[in-house]
Amino acid sequence: MEMKKVYLDNTATTPVLPEVRYTMLPYLTDSFGNPSCLHEWGDIPRDGIEAARGQVAELIGGSQEEIIFTGNGTESNNFALKGLAMAQQKKGKHIVVSAIEHFSVLNSAKTLEKWGFEYTTVPVDKDGIVNPEDVRKAIRDDTILVSIMHANGEVGTIEPIKEIAKITKEKGVLFHTDAVASTGNIPVNVKEMGVDALSLAANMFYGPKGVGALWLKKGTRIMPLLDGGIQEGGRRAGTENVAGIVGMGKAAELARQEMVTRRTKMMQVRDYLLKEVPARISHVIVTGHPQNRLPGHASFCIEFIEGESMLMLLNAKGVGVTSGSACTSRALQASHVLLAMGLPHEIAQGSLLFGLGIDTTKQDIDYVLEVLPPIVERLRQMSPLYSKFIKLGTGG
Amino acid sequence: MEMKKVYLDNTATTPVLPEVRYTMLPYLTDSFGNPSCLHEWGDIPRDGIEAARGQVAELIGGSQEEIIFTGNGTESNNFALKGLAMAQQKKGKHIVVSAIEHFSVLNSAKTLEKWGFEYTTVPVDKDGIVNPEDVRKAIRDDTILVSIMHANGEVGTIEPIKEIAKITKEKGVLFHTDAVASTGNIPVNVKEMGVDALSLAANMFYGPKGVGALWLKKGTRIMPLLDGGIQEGGRRAGTENVAGIVGMGKAAELARQEMVTRRTKMMQVRDYLLKEVPARISHVIVTGHPQNRLPGHASFCIEFIEGESMLMLLNAKGVGVTSGSACTSRALQASHVLLAMGLPHEIAQGSLLFGLGIDTTKQDIDYVLEVLPPIVERLRQMSPLYSKFIKLGTGG
Repeated sequence: MEMKKVYLDNTATTPVLPEVRYTMLPYLTDSFGNPSCLHEWGDIPRDGIEAARGQVAELIGGSQEEIIFTGNGTESNNFALKGLAMAQQKKGKHIVVSAIEHFSVLNSAKTLEKWGFEYTTVPVDKDGIVNPEDVRKAIRDDTILVSIMHANGEVGTIEPIKEIAKITKEKGVLFHTDAVASTGNIPVNVKEMGVDALSLAANMFYGPKGVGALWLKKGTRIMPLLDGGIQEGGRRAGTENVAGIVGMGKAAELARQEMVTRRTKMMQVRDYLLKEVPARISHVIVTGHPQNRLPGHASFCIEFIEGESMLMLLNAKGVGVTSGSACTSRALQASHVLLAMGLPHEIAQGSLLFGLGIDTTKQDIDYVLEVLPPIVERLRQMSPLYSKFIKLGTGG
Repeated sequence: MEMKKVYLDNTATTPVLPEVRYTMLPYLTDSFGNPSCLHEWGDIPRDGIEAARGQVAELIGGSQEEIIFTGNGTESNNFALKGLAMAQQKKGKHIVVSAIEHFSVLNSAKTLEKWGFEYTTVPVDKDGIVNPEDVRKAIRDDTILVSIMHANGEVGTIEPIKEIAKITKEKGVLFHTDAVASTGNIPVNVKEMGVDALSLAANMFYGPKGVGALWLKKGTRIMPLLDGGIQEGGRRAGTENVAGIVGMGKAAELARQEMVTRRTKMMQVRDYLLKEVPARISHVIVTGHPQNRLPGHASFCIEFIEGESMLMLLNAKGVGVTSGSACTSRALQASHVLLAMGLPHEIAQGSLLFGLGIDTTKQDIDYVLEVLPPIVERLRQMSPLYSKFIKLGTGG
């Protein structure tokens, strides 16, 4: 009998939908031309890119000409941070980020520091929420840019972007939001949010890996990261990943059309998981905000356990999950997000993150709920911390 | 009757070979996982990337760990110029480029100038060849990097990289070569060439668009352009374009295996075109070096004509060609390459560039030789310069 396979790591990447793949294939076949070419071989690829630009713009409520395609969410974030800071540096050299940003934002801020900028990190509360008033306090006279993520991929928490945008607008400071984890999964509208720049990535909403975008409000100056030809209005040079871009467009269209259905379905299954894990396993902490969280997102810290061992054993049972961000999962360090939320190091190590997908069923979750408790039990038996805890007579 | 279609713009992009496409498809289907994941969904994508790294390394005679995948040739060039200059800036802030580099190199040098670096541009001769002694003269005590392309995509000229490398080695200066136009089309061996960094792009050798690589000699320090996760050994963060990378690997393998056959076949057809265009049309200049040129490359200046009109009329006959680099073709300016080779502006405007492919036949060329002369004749009839020339009684 073949083992059941349950993929629950959609925060690392989603699969590519068949409709998306079919849309991409012609661009890897007859419509292979370079979109910059003036002859007819350039026409279909160019039209494909422009159609995708429209589809992506529509998903986030922006205009077509405000979309700049990139190689992934990380490039979008680097582009926003470095590109906006470098273009605005005559006004000042200070930026503000939150403590739970993705490393593509945090490390871009560190690079900017080497380039003579300064940055301030605003804290989050125990649920991972940024207090807009902390952003206000962090803004100085020489602040040119605030970058606070829309939703955190590790704990699912959704940030109060509108409230922060009111403050940045009042202060005359640019506001970028990393919406890689949220776009395509929850409603994202750049106008309602009031931001100046927004990052997104196709592989977070059933498009291909290796393509992302930066939405940049019309009229906002930015320094390109990639110099060269005149692609993307001279803002991102280089031959385009045409098939990838077209796939991102299709994925954006589907995400927009099916958002309500997908969300409702995912939240139902997700709520069941969020409720049942702490019910069936002792000493479990649900991480992230109880309500303001991504629809497919369920994250926990299982005390007295090291997350990597748990996911290895779950993997042996056919379940794919993670203990943190995919971009750093191979670095095997405790999550800076959980630490910033005030969790002690030893608890943060027991992090377990389920990224449900649009096809995840209650049966999938039932399987997880069947295999997870014995794994936890087995690992705890081997944990010196747990033995100590039990001996102290306070065990659950 | 359907019109014959002849694609002769393989310097802008090659088609994707069916074998390459088949290799990519599983990574857009079941093997969709994020390579950074620790569970089994990450295994096949990760193995695919590492196999591709080996295939690309083998094509250029480098080691697997020296390959950093990027989003295209432009990113590779930006990464090399900015990344190497920023990492070496304590040693000095001067770089050397040639006058006929791709805009991704030239404009990166201009950006570095804004960042406090200086650069010197070495000239080329009438065939587009850089004199290594000019590079020697351009190197100063504070020079840290020389970037001279391996082959020029607009005129096909192959540069004396080995000779330049001897000088950079002697002077203790890093040497990067943009081998985007050459890699996969002629033998490229980083060790024999003696370079420290080399850029390449998959869509120049029948791989997909949107994926490139930088070969970086072991131990060479570089500043990442993209900060974030630990992908590509921390040198290029961001979720990988897995399907694209795997496709690049397969394309590299095929290019290596079939190089001799492809070259021999292309050169035969190319030589026929190089001989027949000037034989059948008056006032034609062959641009680039007569021998040291890319195997599928034939470029001309047709006097008294504006290149764009020619390619529009050729397009109407089903022939896809260009008048310059794809990355700037829509900017409609006279080629900086032809101007650097000493061609006057009015002649440079009549540029026509044929990029033959591995499937281009003598019949394809015969078709071009049939449709091109009447197009030239028609355009010349409309040209005031040509009328003036004819009246002077010096017409051919």
